[in-house]
Amino acid sequence: MSQNKQVVVKELPQGQLGREHFELQTVDMPSPDDGELLVKTILMSIDAANRAWMQGATYREAVKAGDVMHTYSIGQVVESKSDSHAVGDIVAVEARWAEHVVVKAKAAQKMPPVPVLSHLLSVFGIAGRTAYHGLVDVGRPVKGETVLVSAAAGSVGGYVGQIAKSLGCRAVGIAGSPEKCAWVKEELGFDDCIDYRAPGLFKALQAACPDGIDVYFDNVGGEILETVLFQMNERGRIACCGAISQYDGSPPSGPRNVPGMLVVKRLRMEGFIVMDFAKEAHRATKELQRLVMSGELKIQEDIYEGLESAPDALIGLLAGNNRGKRMVRVAPDPS
Amino acid sequence: MSQNKQVVVKELPQGQLGREHFELQTVDMPSPDDGELLVKTILMSIDAANRAWMQGATYREAVKAGDVMHTYSIGQVVESKSDSHAVGDIVAVEARWAEHVVVKAKAAQKMPPVPVLSHLLSVFGIAGRTAYHGLVDVGRPVKGETVLVSAAAGSVGGYVGQIAKSLGCRAVGIAGSPEKCAWVKEELGFDDCIDYRAPGLFKALQAACPDGIDVYFDNVGGEILETVLFQMNERGRIACCGAISQYDGSPPSGPRNVPGMLVVKRLRMEGFIVMDFAKEAHRATKELQRLVMSGELKIQEDIYEGLESAPDALIGLLAGNNRGKRMVRVAPDPS
Repeated sequence: MSQNKQVVVKELPQGQLGREHFELQTVDMPSPDDGELLVKTILMSIDAANRAWMQGATYREAVKAGDVMHTYSIGQVVESKSDSHAVGDIVAVEARWAEHVVVKAKAAQKMPPVPVLSHLLSVFGIAGRTAYHGLVDVGRPVKGETVLVSAAAGSVGGYVGQIAKSLGCRAVGIAGSPEKCAWVKEELGFDDCIDYRAPGLFKALQAACPDGIDVYFDNVGGEILETVLFQMNERGRIACCGAISQYDGSPPSGPRNVPGMLVVKRLRMEGFIVMDFAKEAHRATKELQRLVMSGELKIQEDIYEGLESAPDALIGLLAGNNRGKRMVRVAPDPS
Repeated sequence: MSQNKQVVVKELPQGQLGREHFELQTVDMPSPDDGELLVKTILMSIDAANRAWMQGATYREAVKAGDVMHTYSIGQVVESKSDSHAVGDIVAVEARWAEHVVVKAKAAQKMPPVPVLSHLLSVFGIAGRTAYHGLVDVGRPVKGETVLVSAAAGSVGGYVGQIAKSLGCRAVGIAGSPEKCAWVKEELGFDDCIDYRAPGLFKALQAACPDGIDVYFDNVGGEILETVLFQMNERGRIACCGAISQYDGSPPSGPRNVPGMLVVKRLRMEGFIVMDFAKEAHRATKELQRLVMSGELKIQEDIYEGLESAPDALIGLLAGNNRGKRMVRVAPDPS
């Protein structure tokens, strides 16, 4: 019987996530029942939200100790016990950190043929679509407005700023090092980018956003959110995409100017997740394709190699060491 | 020359507001220039926002030490240097804590004749219109949903719950004593009301809102907001009307589940002030009149007598001792 490698959550982290919370295991190859598929994992999406899943139930099932770590993956069907899918199909699945997974056929979404599969997890995947819907449908920027985005060197933030530019807005990023900020400006074409680890965030924001901030795409929460709220323009909008600063065991703290500043400035603060916009995915994909074709949107990917690198890929992401969409390649694209 | 009484802010409070921050003065009667009116104050509106004005510039000019205290008033024109207003006109004005004030004629809004002038400051004034627009236009409740409102025994909260009932919603209040809660239920007809000073707010909310909370009309901010956020239903809405818990020198603290809970539950949190809806005031007035006529809306007023009672009226309001719209009567209604 052939074997399967997988990465298990040995123990849920109490504080910061570390390698010690994971274990690589070799187990028997699973086998699909009726209505199921055996899928070979090609690429796994690595997201800050993975860490939030370990904190308890969110908008989805929590990750528990002993679970093979949960993930979204792109894979290829290698055995099918369903009429709906054929061997060789490329599918997107809620999967696990494993070389092979068994999934319900009806939960395996067939993917269109694209030349580079990783694009299905970056620009045309959750990252690109989160940026698009969060900015366009929640933030609703108008030409000439200033759009600020945190985690600007991250998988979502980079697209947010580029889409904002394409809409005629001033795009300003916040990132975690001078090198990242330089990359965000030079490589992604943001108008400005601020290193939040340097002292003087408030003044740096004032300098980078001389007309105030109209839309803040918030990936981090915490003190940065509090500082930004003071500089929002009246009737500003905050698209709440995540709170990465609060996922990894930092003591939770809340923005002290909520709700005061929301009242004074008549701000709208709204949380969203990309699944809410499933019915409008076509509009996002079409616009993202147009922007990629026109060169207005550069695709940033940050790929680790090998299943066993997945813990480091996630731990590093939480520490902010990624540039663009992080994923783990478990097998090569089928030729 | 005749004289005028006024109450001056002797010193801005650092912590809690007290009588020592005010001083009653007798000064010469002011006299209007061209384009101005001399207005005799009849009723002054006493609002938690008055205290926020002392914290610095908000959506309006700040109150400074040495200022005659700012207020909204209903008054009668006693001398006019403008063709737009005649002696005897009843007007609503941004005024001061004073028996008489001089105002620009163009800033004095003529009021329709109503049998009881205080209704212009309660149900048909800022309190009623704030409740209406905040609930209907910001919170957007749907029949059958649960609407929660804090400061339910206050000037705005009482109307919020009654309007929610008229829309077919479950109305639940939060107030500051068992007596207030009983009054909110029995007199105002709320389905339930919770004493936030009693232990176990979280469980009390669960019991009073068995189907979760769809709309939270927030007058207080702080820890109550944090607790409520945990019990909001997905796609819930928080209409941010004020943060009374943070106006009077309490150490500011922020809800630790912002923005996390907003993302997980896809909540919308939106600040507003009633002036934003000036163009739609007619719709609010019409609906509020209909509800008063039909008996669905009871008018609650809490009137202190005499200009010199204004500091106590405000200090008491901040401590939560009011039932319904607080105001100060400076002169009787004209007969």
